[in-house]
Amino acid sequence: MSNIIYYHAGCPVCLEAERSVVAELQKNSEVTIVNLGEDKKAITDAKTVGVKSVPALVINGLPFHINFGAPMSALEA
Amino acid sequence: MSNIIYYHAGCPVCLEAERSVVAELQKNSEVTIVNLGEDKKAITDAKTVGVKSVPALVINGLPFHINFGAPMSALEA
Repeated sequence: MSNIIYYHAGCPVCLEAERSVVAELQKNSEVTIVNLGEDKKAITDAKTVGVKSVPALVINGLPFHINFGAPMSALEA
Repeated sequence: MSNIIYYHAGCPVCLEAERSVVAELQKNSEVTIVNLGEDKKAITDAKTVGVKSVPALVINGLPFHINFGAPMSALEA
């Protein structure tokens, strides 16, 4: 069973990825969806596994950045 | 039924994405896998839908770049 987390910040690029990539993954798997704009505490978790921008998927601990919505630094501000 | 194409060029970043993101998608969906390093004719198709680098997923015509392996220009050379 894979562990899949989707980090986003509600940006347009994030929403497009959520509607397509995340929606496809959800057909078979549980995806934990975390809005880093609302859940600032989770930013540290995301950075720890190597997330540099959103939207990003973390699958079994590996980060996969999807297109480019916003850098982590913009969310920390 | 979604139409999913995975464009790659056999690079290490591409292989990691294939083992994680594509493998997850394949649990529920058919994914057409195209190696643009071997299938140069497909580069035009990929560029037409907006693929700028590999690895990239195209889901129902929308391009999603995953991390960054190589720009399309490197594959055209």
